[in-house]
Amino acid sequence: MYPKSIEKLIESFKMLPGVGNKSAERYALLMLEKSEEEIESFANALISAKQNVKPCKICGNYTENDICDICNDNSRDKETICVVQSAKDVIAMEKTKEYHGMYHVLNGLISSVKGIMPQDLNLDTLYNRLDNVKEVIIATSPTLEGETTAMYLANVLKNKNLKVTRIAHGLQMGSHVDYVDELSLIKAMENRKEL
Amino acid sequence: MYPKSIEKLIESFKMLPGVGNKSAERYALLMLEKSEEEIESFANALISAKQNVKPCKICGNYTENDICDICNDNSRDKETICVVQSAKDVIAMEKTKEYHGMYHVLNGLISSVKGIMPQDLNLDTLYNRLDNVKEVIIATSPTLEGETTAMYLANVLKNKNLKVTRIAHGLQMGSHVDYVDELSLIKAMENRKEL
Repeated sequence: MYPKSIEKLIESFKMLPGVGNKSAERYALLMLEKSEEEIESFANALISAKQNVKPCKICGNYTENDICDICNDNSRDKETICVVQSAKDVIAMEKTKEYHGMYHVLNGLISSVKGIMPQDLNLDTLYNRLDNVKEVIIATSPTLEGETTAMYLANVLKNKNLKVTRIAHGLQMGSHVDYVDELSLIKAMENRKEL
Repeated sequence: MYPKSIEKLIESFKMLPGVGNKSAERYALLMLEKSEEEIESFANALISAKQNVKPCKICGNYTENDICDICNDNSRDKETICVVQSAKDVIAMEKTKEYHGMYHVLNGLISSVKGIMPQDLNLDTLYNRLDNVKEVIIATSPTLEGETTAMYLANVLKNKNLKVTRIAHGLQMGSHVDYVDELSLIKAMENRKEL
């Protein structure tokens, strides 16, 4: 129905998460209305992001250099490392503007279902940077895999003479007690604080 | 927060209709996880669609050649021309698999608000292909601009010794009488058919 080059572009857009046939068609047809410069800059952005972005050699965060901006920033607290699943989590954390320590990106979580074992994670580099570190905050998601990884890490790090903490579980801001799942409510009760 | 090349990719994704900051970020970060081949094929698809797709010299439909597949198809009914606003409408119509005539793409609609006049539309080529045509079906959308264009065209074509028809207005399939807007209901009553 479409000329071949439009078909191909539609297929490409279908790579995007949550983009089905209908949206991909809409995107592809809209692209035809854009100027040649815009299209070229889009194509270049794709290729250059893929070519230039790599994991930081220290923490695994996204960077275009060997070392990421956060690891290079001397104003940050080098004595605290926040361990996260992926570089996306670093960005989520940075958006809060509340955390000023370092990060370590695991690139995955321990999962018996997916066959991901501790040795598959970016852990050796973590163990190598623990000198002078006072606290490791484990900020994996409160899912089965996130919890498993947190417990594994807490166990490995317990003799290293540093504080190991876990981000709090509880009710999310804006949620309603009557709609929240039981486990979250149990955690919220367990972790209650004196006012 | 992001390396520059990711920022740029996010900006590019924000060109897509209905894609805001959050989705653009998600798309950009997902692209980093794709293989280099996939990214290259995406970039090439963008550029090749833009470079290769042009309007058919007869009807204005999308094509990679001078004349589109529909105009080139001798099995189609050359005596009927369906006039549509854009090449996207040709595709919508073709998906029904019910229409076997020719098309003519106006590339717009008459609009006093947007300052689009009849001479801005792809109309001269339409007038030049009316020999041997028995019916012109005006299939612009039932909007103010679509109706204006339909009335203008009907008026211009009325002395040309051919039938000029307009696609039907009424209730869309699956819609509910109690939810439909008044104008659609009025049109549906006016255009009622004997069973």
